[in-house]
Amino acid sequence: MRITNGEHIAVGPGKIALLEAIDQTGSITAAAKSLEMSYRRAWLLLDEMNHALREPAVSTSQGGNSGGGSVLTDAGRQVIALYRRIEDGAAAACQQDIRALMKLMAR
Amino acid sequence: MRITNGEHIAVGPGKIALLEAIDQTGSITAAAKSLEMSYRRAWLLLDEMNHALREPAVSTSQGGNSGGGSVLTDAGRQVIALYRRIEDGAAAACQQDIRALMKLMAR
Repeated sequence: MRITNGEHIAVGPGKIALLEAIDQTGSITAAAKSLEMSYRRAWLLLDEMNHALREPAVSTSQGGNSGGGSVLTDAGRQVIALYRRIEDGAAAACQQDIRALMKLMAR
Repeated sequence: MRITNGEHIAVGPGKIALLEAIDQTGSITAAAKSLEMSYRRAWLLLDEMNHALREPAVSTSQGGNSGGGSVLTDAGRQVIALYRRIEDGAAAACQQDIRALMKLMAR
C-alpha cells in the first residue's frame, strides 16, 4: 500500500520499513545498513516523508561524542501504527479477492 | 495498492490504468498516448505484467491494414475487476484509519 501526495509517494512499504529500522537502531546510518540501503537513499526517503507529513517523523540530534542519534517522533509512531493497521485491516477484509488475484499470478 | 512478485511489481495502479486504457482504445499505442506514456514504457509494463501472470492480460493481433490491435484477455479483465474490488473493499474497511493517516499529512 502506498499513500501519495500529488506526484510524491508520502508513505509506502520502504519508508515504513525505514522508520521501523530507525526505531530499532536509533540511527539513520544503522537503519540504512540494516536495510542494505545507502545512507543517501535513506536520507532522501526521510526528507521526502518529513515534507509530506505535517510534523517530521524522525528527530535527529546533531553532534556529541556519539555523533548524534535519531528517534521517532510521536507523528512517526502514529504513521507506522496506522499504516500497519490499514494493511492488516485491508488484508482481512479482502482476503477472498486477494486470494483470487494471487491465483492469476504465475508461480 | 501494489502486488509484488519477488522483486517485481506484478500489479499496481500504473499497470491497471494501462489495461483499462487498452480496453477503451483497443491499442497499446493509443492507450500509451492517452496516459501520456511512451509506447516503449507501455510495452515494458505489459511485458512485465504478462510474465507475472499465469496467462497474458492482453492479446495483440499483428499486422493487417489497421496495423493490428490489442484486446484484454479474460485474465486481464479479471485482474482489473479484482484489483478495483480489493481497492474499494480496503478503502471501505479502513476508512477511519485512512482518514487518521491523511490528517498527519501536510496540506
